[in-house]
Amino acid sequence: MDSIGSDNRQVYPKQSALMQKIDFIKEVDKLKTILRRTILFDKSRQENDAEHTWELAMMAVVLYDSVSPNTDLLRCLKMLLIHDLVEIYAGDTYAYDQTGIVDQHERERHSAEKIFGILPKSLGDEMLHLWEEFEARTTSEAKFARALDRLQPLLHNYYTDGVSWQKHAVTAPQVRYSMAVIRDSSDELGELVDSLIDDAVKRGFLPESLPS
Amino acid sequence: MDSIGSDNRQVYPKQSALMQKIDFIKEVDKLKTILRRTILFDKSRQENDAEHTWELAMMAVVLYDSVSPNTDLLRCLKMLLIHDLVEIYAGDTYAYDQTGIVDQHERERHSAEKIFGILPKSLGDEMLHLWEEFEARTTSEAKFARALDRLQPLLHNYYTDGVSWQKHAVTAPQVRYSMAVIRDSSDELGELVDSLIDDAVKRGFLPESLPS
Repeated sequence: MDSIGSDNRQVYPKQSALMQKIDFIKEVDKLKTILRRTILFDKSRQENDAEHTWELAMMAVVLYDSVSPNTDLLRCLKMLLIHDLVEIYAGDTYAYDQTGIVDQHERERHSAEKIFGILPKSLGDEMLHLWEEFEARTTSEAKFARALDRLQPLLHNYYTDGVSWQKHAVTAPQVRYSMAVIRDSSDELGELVDSLIDDAVKRGFLPESLPS
Repeated sequence: MDSIGSDNRQVYPKQSALMQKIDFIKEVDKLKTILRRTILFDKSRQENDAEHTWELAMMAVVLYDSVSPNTDLLRCLKMLLIHDLVEIYAGDTYAYDQTGIVDQHERERHSAEKIFGILPKSLGDEMLHLWEEFEARTTSEAKFARALDRLQPLLHNYYTDGVSWQKHAVTAPQVRYSMAVIRDSSDELGELVDSLIDDAVKRGFLPESLPS
Protein backbone atom coordinates (compact mmCIF):
# COMPACT_ATOMS: atom_id res chain seq x y z
CA MET A 1 0.00 0.00 0.00
CA ASP A 2 1.17 3.48 -0.80
CA SER A 3 1.17 4.63 2.84
CA ILE A 4 2.67 7.66 4.51
CA GLY A 5 5.56 5.43 5.56
CA SER A 6 6.25 3.92 2.18
CA ASP A 7 6.48 7.21 0.35
CA ASN A 8 8.70 8.55 3.10
CA ARG A 9 6.46 11.40 4.25
CA GLN A 10 6.48 12.06 7.95
CA VAL A 11 4.21 15.04 8.24
CA TYR A 12 2.32 13.62 11.18
CA PRO A 13 3.13 10.68 13.50
CA LYS A 14 2.62 7.90 10.95
CA GLN A 15 1.52 5.30 13.48
CA SER A 16 -1.20 7.58 14.88
CA ALA A 17 -4.86 6.58 14.61
CA LEU A 18 -5.46 9.68 12.48
CA MET A 19 -2.84 8.69 9.91
CA GLN A 20 -4.26 5.15 9.74
CA LYS A 21 -7.60 6.74 8.83
CA ILE A 22 -5.95 8.93 6.18
CA ASP A 23 -4.28 5.81 4.74
CA PHE A 24 -7.73 4.19 4.60
CA ILE A 25 -9.23 7.22 2.84
CA LYS A 26 -6.44 7.09 0.25
CA GLU A 27 -6.88 3.35 -0.33
CA VAL A 28 -10.68 3.39 -0.73
CA ASP A 29 -10.33 6.03 -3.46
CA LYS A 30 -9.84 2.99 -5.73
CA LEU A 31 -13.61 2.41 -5.52
CA LYS A 32 -13.88 5.18 -8.13
CA THR A 33 -12.06 3.03 -10.67
CA ILE A 34 -14.27 -0.10 -10.44
CA LEU A 35 -16.78 -0.09 -13.28
CA ARG A 36 -20.26 -1.57 -12.96
CA ARG A 37 -22.60 -2.90 -15.67
CA THR A 38 -25.14 -0.20 -14.84
CA ILE A 39 -25.19 2.80 -17.18
CA LEU A 40 -26.11 6.37 -16.25
CA PHE A 41 -29.71 7.53 -16.87
CA ASP A 42 -28.39 9.69 -19.73
CA LYS A 43 -26.87 6.50 -21.29
CA SER A 44 -23.50 8.26 -21.69
CA ARG A 45 -21.36 5.64 -19.91
CA GLN A 46 -21.14 2.95 -17.21
CA GLU A 47 -21.10 4.10 -13.64
CA ASN A 48 -18.44 3.17 -11.09
CA ASP A 49 -18.76 1.81 -7.56
CA ALA A 50 -18.23 5.16 -5.82
CA GLU A 51 -20.99 6.82 -7.85
CA HIS A 52 -23.26 3.83 -7.24
CA THR A 53 -22.60 4.02 -3.51
CA TRP A 54 -23.43 7.73 -3.36
CA GLU A 55 -26.69 7.08 -5.21
CA LEU A 56 -27.68 4.30 -2.79
CA ALA A 57 -27.04 6.55 0.22
CA MET A 58 -29.09 9.32 -1.41
CA MET A 59 -31.89 6.82 -2.12
CA ALA A 60 -31.84 5.62 1.51
CA VAL A 61 -32.50 9.16 2.73
CA VAL A 62 -35.24 9.80 0.16
CA LEU A 63 -36.99 6.41 0.36
CA TYR A 64 -36.64 5.93 4.12
CA ASP A 65 -40.35 6.29 4.85
CA SER A 66 -41.11 3.31 2.60
CA VAL A 67 -39.65 1.00 5.26
CA SER A 68 -40.44 0.10 8.87
CA PRO A 69 -39.94 3.16 11.12
CA ASN A 70 -37.76 1.23 13.57
CA THR A 71 -35.06 1.01 10.88
CA ASP A 72 -31.95 2.90 12.01
CA LEU A 73 -31.11 5.17 9.06
CA LEU A 74 -27.61 6.05 10.32
CA ARG A 75 -26.70 2.38 10.61
CA CYS A 76 -28.09 1.76 7.15
CA LEU A 77 -26.10 4.65 5.66
CA LYS A 78 -22.85 3.46 7.23
CA MET A 79 -23.53 -0.02 5.85
CA LEU A 80 -24.20 1.34 2.36
CA LEU A 81 -21.13 3.59 2.36
CA ILE A 82 -18.81 0.61 2.95
CA HIS A 83 -20.76 -2.27 1.35
CA ASP A 84 -18.80 -2.36 -1.91
CA LEU A 85 -15.31 -1.63 -0.56
CA VAL A 86 -14.56 -5.36 -0.73
CA GLU A 87 -14.65 -5.02 -4.52
CA ILE A 88 -11.41 -3.03 -4.38
CA TYR A 89 -9.57 -6.35 -4.09
CA ALA A 90 -12.30 -8.84 -5.06
CA GLY A 91 -13.74 -7.06 -8.12
CA ASP A 92 -17.40 -6.54 -9.03
CA THR A 93 -19.49 -9.67 -9.52
CA TYR A 94 -22.49 -9.09 -11.81
CA ALA A 95 -25.76 -10.20 -10.16
CA TYR A 96 -26.51 -12.49 -13.13
CA ASP A 97 -23.02 -14.01 -13.38
CA GLN A 98 -23.32 -17.69 -12.34
CA THR A 99 -19.57 -18.39 -12.46
CA GLY A 100 -18.32 -15.45 -10.44
CA ILE A 101 -20.87 -16.07 -7.71
CA VAL A 102 -19.31 -19.44 -6.74
CA ASP A 103 -16.31 -18.17 -4.75
CA GLN A 104 -17.61 -14.61 -4.36
CA HIS A 105 -18.14 -14.74 -0.61
CA GLU A 106 -14.69 -16.14 0.17
CA ARG A 107 -12.95 -13.56 -2.03
CA GLU A 108 -14.96 -10.75 -0.49
CA ARG A 109 -14.41 -11.88 3.10
CA HIS A 110 -10.65 -11.86 2.56
CA SER A 111 -10.91 -8.45 0.93
CA ALA A 112 -12.99 -7.07 3.82
CA GLU A 113 -10.39 -8.08 6.38
CA LYS A 114 -7.67 -6.47 4.29
CA ILE A 115 -9.39 -3.14 3.67
CA PHE A 116 -10.82 -2.63 7.16
CA GLY A 117 -7.51 -3.80 8.64
CA ILE A 118 -5.99 -0.48 7.53
CA LEU A 119 -8.10 1.34 10.16
CA PRO A 120 -7.45 1.56 13.91
CA LYS A 121 -8.64 -1.75 15.42
CA SER A 122 -11.93 -0.72 17.04
CA LEU A 123 -13.09 1.28 14.01
CA GLY A 124 -11.99 -1.45 11.61
CA ASP A 125 -13.90 -4.04 13.63
CA GLU A 126 -17.04 -1.87 13.56
CA MET A 127 -16.79 -1.62 9.77
CA LEU A 128 -16.18 -5.36 9.37
CA HIS A 129 -19.25 -6.11 11.48
CA LEU A 130 -21.34 -3.70 9.42
CA TRP A 131 -20.22 -5.46 6.26
CA GLU A 132 -21.06 -8.86 7.78
CA GLU A 133 -24.47 -7.52 8.80
CA PHE A 134 -25.07 -6.32 5.24
CA GLU A 135 -24.11 -9.73 3.88
CA ALA A 136 -26.26 -11.67 6.40
CA ARG A 137 -29.39 -9.65 5.54
CA THR A 138 -31.24 -10.40 8.78
CA THR A 139 -31.63 -6.93 10.33
CA SER A 140 -34.09 -4.40 8.94
CA GLU A 141 -31.16 -2.05 8.17
CA ALA A 142 -29.40 -4.73 6.11
CA LYS A 143 -32.65 -5.63 4.32
CA PHE A 144 -33.23 -1.99 3.38
CA ALA A 145 -29.62 -1.61 2.21
CA ARG A 146 -29.87 -4.76 0.11
CA ALA A 147 -33.22 -3.69 -1.34
CA LEU A 148 -31.70 -0.39 -2.49
CA ASP A 149 -28.67 -2.21 -3.92
CA ARG A 150 -31.08 -4.17 -6.16
CA LEU A 151 -33.55 -1.36 -6.87
CA GLN A 152 -30.90 1.07 -8.13
CA PRO A 153 -29.69 -0.97 -11.14
CA LEU A 154 -33.32 -1.90 -11.90
CA LEU A 155 -34.23 1.78 -12.16
CA HIS A 156 -31.25 2.42 -14.43
CA ASN A 157 -32.13 -0.54 -16.62
CA TYR A 158 -35.79 0.40 -16.82
CA TYR A 159 -35.23 4.04 -17.71
CA THR A 160 -32.56 3.22 -20.30
CA ASP A 161 -34.78 0.66 -22.06
CA GLY A 162 -32.83 -2.28 -20.66
CA VAL A 163 -29.49 -1.56 -22.36
CA SER A 164 -27.52 -3.55 -19.77
CA TRP A 165 -30.12 -6.36 -19.54
CA GLN A 166 -30.02 -6.85 -23.29
CA LYS A 167 -26.25 -6.73 -23.48
CA HIS A 168 -26.02 -9.51 -20.88
CA ALA A 169 -29.04 -11.53 -22.16
CA VAL A 170 -30.99 -11.21 -18.91
CA THR A 171 -34.60 -12.45 -18.74
CA ALA A 172 -37.63 -11.34 -16.72
CA PRO A 173 -37.62 -14.46 -14.47
CA GLN A 174 -33.98 -13.74 -13.52
CA VAL A 175 -34.85 -10.14 -12.67
CA ARG A 176 -37.93 -11.18 -10.63
CA TYR A 177 -35.79 -13.67 -8.69
CA SER A 178 -33.07 -11.10 -8.02
CA MET A 179 -35.59 -8.42 -6.98
CA ALA A 180 -37.58 -10.63 -4.57
CA VAL A 181 -35.47 -9.35 -1.64
CA ILE A 182 -36.94 -5.89 -2.11
CA ARG A 183 -40.28 -7.02 -0.72
CA ASP A 184 -38.50 -8.27 2.44
CA SER A 185 -37.83 -4.62 3.16
CA SER A 186 -40.83 -2.75 1.76
CA ASP A 187 -44.19 -3.70 0.20
CA GLU A 188 -44.37 -0.29 -1.45
CA LEU A 189 -41.00 -0.68 -3.16
CA GLY A 190 -41.88 -4.28 -4.02
CA GLU A 191 -45.02 -3.12 -5.85
CA LEU A 192 -43.09 -0.46 -7.73
CA VAL A 193 -40.54 -3.03 -8.86
CA ASP A 194 -43.23 -5.48 -10.03
CA SER A 195 -44.86 -2.78 -12.11
CA LEU A 196 -41.53 -1.76 -13.67
CA ILE A 197 -40.65 -5.35 -14.59
CA ASP A 198 -44.09 -5.98 -16.09
CA ASP A 199 -43.89 -2.79 -18.09
CA ALA A 200 -40.37 -3.63 -19.33
CA VAL A 201 -41.68 -6.98 -20.59
CA LYS A 202 -44.64 -5.27 -22.24
CA ARG A 203 -42.37 -2.76 -23.95
CA GLY A 204 -40.18 -5.56 -25.28
CA PHE A 205 -36.81 -4.83 -23.70
CA LEU A 206 -36.96 -7.61 -21.09
CA PRO A 207 -37.95 -10.98 -22.56
CA GLU A 208 -39.67 -13.72 -20.53
CA SER A 209 -37.27 -16.17 -22.18
CA LEU A 210 -34.39 -16.16 -24.63
CA PRO A 211 -34.89 -17.39 -28.20
CA SER A 212 -33.77 -21.05 -28.32
CA MET B 1 -37.17 17.56 -16.83
CA ASP B 2 -37.28 14.06 -18.21
CA SER B 3 -40.00 12.89 -15.81
CA ILE B 4 -42.20 9.85 -15.81
CA GLY B 5 -44.91 12.04 -17.25
CA SER B 6 -42.88 13.54 -20.06
CA ASP B 7 -41.65 10.21 -21.40
CA ASN B 8 -45.19 8.92 -21.26
CA ARG B 9 -44.66 6.03 -18.88
CA GLN B 10 -47.46 5.41 -16.43
CA VAL B 11 -46.23 2.36 -14.56
CA TYR B 12 -47.21 3.74 -11.20
CA PRO B 13 -49.45 6.69 -10.25
CA LYS B 14 -47.22 9.44 -11.56
CA GLN B 15 -48.37 12.07 -9.09
CA SER B 16 -47.67 9.78 -6.09
CA ALA B 17 -45.04 10.78 -3.54
CA LEU B 18 -43.05 7.69 -4.48
CA MET B 19 -42.86 8.67 -8.15
CA GLN B 20 -41.78 12.20 -7.21
CA LYS B 21 -38.90 10.60 -5.30
CA ILE B 22 -38.00 8.42 -8.28
CA ASP B 23 -38.01 11.53 -10.50
CA PHE B 24 -35.62 13.15 -8.01
CA ILE B 25 -33.32 10.12 -8.04
CA LYS B 26 -33.22 10.23 -11.85
CA GLU B 27 -32.51 13.96 -11.91
CA VAL B 28 -29.69 13.93 -9.33
CA ASP B 29 -27.86 11.29 -11.39
CA LYS B 30 -26.49 14.32 -13.27
CA LEU B 31 -24.15 14.89 -10.30
CA LYS B 32 -22.01 12.12 -11.81
CA THR B 33 -21.32 14.28 -14.85
CA ILE B 34 -20.01 17.40 -13.07
CA LEU B 35 -16.23 17.39 -13.06
CA ARG B 36 -14.15 18.88 -10.25
CA ARG B 37 -10.59 20.21 -10.28
CA THR B 38 -9.52 17.51 -7.83
CA ILE B 39 -7.73 14.51 -9.33
CA LEU B 40 -7.83 10.94 -8.00
CA PHE B 41 -4.99 9.78 -5.71
CA ASP B 42 -3.73 7.60 -8.59
CA LYS B 43 -3.55 10.79 -10.76
CA SER B 44 -5.48 9.02 -13.57
CA ARG B 45 -8.22 11.65 -14.00
CA GLN B 46 -10.38 14.35 -12.39
CA GLU B 47 -13.10 13.20 -10.03
CA ASN B 48 -16.77 14.13 -10.36
CA ASP B 49 -19.21 15.51 -7.79
CA ALA B 50 -20.88 12.15 -7.02
CA GLU B 51 -17.53 10.49 -6.29
CA HIS B 52 -16.47 13.49 -4.21
CA THR B 53 -19.71 13.30 -2.24
CA TRP B 54 -19.30 9.60 -1.49
CA GLU B 55 -15.75 10.25 -0.28
CA LEU B 56 -16.90 13.04 2.06
CA ALA B 57 -19.58 10.79 3.57
CA MET B 58 -17.02 8.02 4.04
CA MET B 59 -14.63 10.53 5.66
CA ALA B 60 -17.38 11.74 8.01
CA VAL B 61 -17.87 8.21 9.34
CA VAL B 62 -14.13 7.56 9.69
CA LEU B 63 -13.11 10.95 11.13
CA TYR B 64 -16.17 11.44 13.35
CA ASP B 65 -14.25 11.09 16.61
CA SER B 66 -12.06 14.07 15.70
CA VAL B 67 -15.03 16.39 16.36
CA SER B 68 -17.20 17.30 19.33
CA PRO B 69 -19.22 14.23 20.46
CA ASN B 70 -22.49 16.17 20.42
CA THR B 71 -22.27 16.40 16.62
CA ASP B 72 -25.18 14.49 15.05
CA LEU B 73 -23.53 12.22 12.47
CA LEU B 74 -26.78 11.32 10.69
CA ARG B 75 -27.59 14.99 10.17
CA CYS B 76 -24.08 15.60 8.93
CA LEU B 77 -24.28 12.70 6.47
CA LYS B 78 -27.61 13.90 5.07
CA MET B 79 -26.12 17.36 4.64
CA LEU B 80 -23.06 16.01 2.85
CA LEU B 81 -25.09 13.76 0.55
CA ILE B 82 -27.05 16.74 -0.80
CA HIS B 83 -24.57 19.61 -0.40
CA ASP B 84 -23.41 19.67 -4.04
CA LEU B 85 -26.74 18.96 -5.76
CA VAL B 86 -27.10 22.68 -6.43
CA GLU B 87 -24.19 22.34 -8.88
CA ILE B 88 -26.46 20.36 -11.22
CA TYR B 89 -27.90 23.67 -12.40
CA ALA B 90 -25.34 26.16 -11.00
CA GLY B 91 -22.09 24.36 -11.92
CA ASP B 92 -18.99 23.86 -9.79
CA THR B 93 -17.23 27.00 -8.55
CA TYR B 94 -13.54 26.42 -7.81
CA ALA B 95 -12.63 27.53 -4.28
CA TYR B 96 -9.91 29.82 -5.66
CA ASP B 97 -12.03 31.34 -8.46
CA GLN B 98 -12.61 35.01 -7.56
CA THR B 99 -15.00 35.69 -10.46
CA GLY B 100 -17.36 32.76 -10.04
CA ILE B 101 -17.71 33.40 -6.31
CA VAL B 102 -19.46 36.77 -6.88
CA ASP B 103 -22.92 35.48 -7.81
CA GLN B 104 -22.36 31.94 -6.57
CA HIS B 105 -24.83 32.08 -3.70
CA GLU B 106 -27.68 33.47 -5.78
CA ARG B 107 -27.19 30.88 -8.54
CA GLU B 108 -27.02 28.09 -5.99
CA ARG B 109 -30.07 29.22 -4.04
CA HIS B 110 -32.16 29.20 -7.21
CA SER B 111 -30.78 25.78 -8.08
CA ALA B 112 -31.57 24.40 -4.60
CA GLU B 113 -35.21 25.42 -4.88
CA LYS B 114 -35.44 23.80 -8.29
CA ILE B 115 -33.84 20.48 -7.41
CA PHE B 116 -35.52 19.97 -4.01
CA GLY B 117 -38.82 21.13 -5.50
CA ILE B 118 -38.99 17.82 -7.38
CA LEU B 119 -39.56 16.01 -4.06
CA PRO B 120 -42.81 15.80 -2.06
CA LYS B 121 -43.14 19.13 -0.19
CA SER B 122 -42.17 18.08 3.37
CA LEU B 123 -39.14 16.08 2.24
CA GLY B 124 -38.08 18.81 -0.19
CA ASP B 125 -38.32 21.40 2.56
CA GLU B 126 -36.19 19.25 4.89
CA MET B 127 -33.52 18.97 2.18
CA LEU B 128 -33.61 22.70 1.45
CA HIS B 129 -33.15 23.48 5.15
CA LEU B 130 -30.24 21.05 5.37
CA TRP B 131 -28.60 22.81 2.43
CA GLU B 132 -29.20 26.23 4.05
CA GLU B 133 -27.71 24.89 7.29
CA PHE B 134 -24.63 23.69 5.38
CA GLU B 135 -24.25 27.09 3.75
CA ALA B 136 -24.72 29.03 7.02
CA ARG B 137 -22.01 27.00 8.79
CA THR B 138 -23.21 27.78 12.32
CA THR B 139 -24.10 24.32 13.68
CA SER B 140 -21.44 21.78 14.61
CA GLU B 141 -22.80 19.44 11.90
CA ALA B 142 -22.42 22.10 9.22
CA LYS B 143 -18.93 23.01 10.46
CA PHE B 144 -17.85 19.36 10.29
CA ALA B 145 -19.35 18.96 6.80
CA ARG B 146 -17.61 22.12 5.60
CA ALA B 147 -14.31 21.04 7.15
CA LEU B 148 -14.46 17.74 5.26
CA ASP B 149 -15.37 19.55 2.04
CA ARG B 150 -12.12 21.52 2.38
CA LEU B 151 -9.95 18.71 3.76
CA GLN B 152 -10.76 16.25 0.94
CA PRO B 153 -9.29 18.28 -1.97
CA LEU B 154 -6.33 19.23 0.25
CA LEU B 155 -5.53 15.54 0.79
CA HIS B 156 -5.79 14.90 -2.95
CA ASN B 157 -3.57 17.86 -3.75
CA TYR B 158 -1.00 16.92 -1.12
CA TYR B 159 -0.71 13.27 -2.14
CA THR B 160 -0.51 14.09 -5.86
CA ASP B 161 2.29 16.65 -5.35
CA GLY B 162 -0.07 19.58 -5.89
CA VAL B 163 -1.00 18.87 -9.51
CA SER B 164 -4.23 20.85 -9.29
CA TRP B 165 -2.71 23.66 -7.19
CA GLN B 166 0.06 24.16 -9.72
CA LYS B 167 -2.29 24.02 -12.69
CA HIS B 168 -4.38 26.82 -11.15
CA ALA B 169 -1.44 28.84 -9.75
CA VAL B 170 -2.58 28.53 -6.14
CA THR B 171 -0.34 29.79 -3.32
CA ALA B 172 0.14 28.67 0.29
CA PRO B 173 -1.54 31.80 1.76
CA GLN B 174 -4.65 31.06 -0.33
CA VAL B 175 -4.73 27.47 0.89
CA ARG B 176 -4.23 28.51 4.53
CA TYR B 177 -7.08 31.01 4.22
CA SER B 178 -9.39 28.44 2.64
CA MET B 179 -8.51 25.77 5.20
CA ALA B 180 -9.00 27.98 8.28
CA VAL B 181 -12.60 26.71 8.63
CA ILE B 182 -11.28 23.24 9.43
CA ARG B 183 -10.10 24.38 12.85
CA ASP B 184 -13.64 25.64 13.59
CA SER B 185 -14.64 22.00 13.60
CA SER B 186 -11.61 20.13 14.93
CA ASP B 187 -8.23 21.07 16.40
CA GLU B 188 -6.87 17.66 15.47
CA LEU B 189 -7.81 18.03 11.80
CA GLY B 190 -6.58 21.64 11.88
CA GLU B 191 -3.14 20.49 13.04
CA LEU B 192 -3.00 17.82 10.36
CA VAL B 193 -3.82 20.39 7.69
CA ASP B 194 -1.17 22.85 8.93
CA SER B 195 1.48 20.14 8.79
CA LEU B 196 0.44 19.11 5.26
CA ILE B 197 0.55 22.70 3.98
CA ASP B 198 3.95 23.33 5.58
CA ASP B 199 5.31 20.13 4.10
CA ALA B 200 3.91 20.98 0.64
CA VAL B 201 5.73 24.33 0.78
CA LYS B 202 8.94 22.62 1.91
CA ARG B 203 8.72 20.09 -0.91
CA GLY B 204 8.28 22.88 -3.45
CA PHE B 205 4.84 22.18 -4.93
CA LEU B 206 2.97 24.93 -3.09
CA PRO B 207 4.74 28.31 -3.33
CA GLU B 208 4.37 31.04 -0.70
CA SER B 209 4.01 33.51 -3.58
CA LEU B 210 3.96 33.50 -7.38
CA PRO B 211 6.99 34.73 -9.34
CA SER B 212 6.31 38.37 -10.30
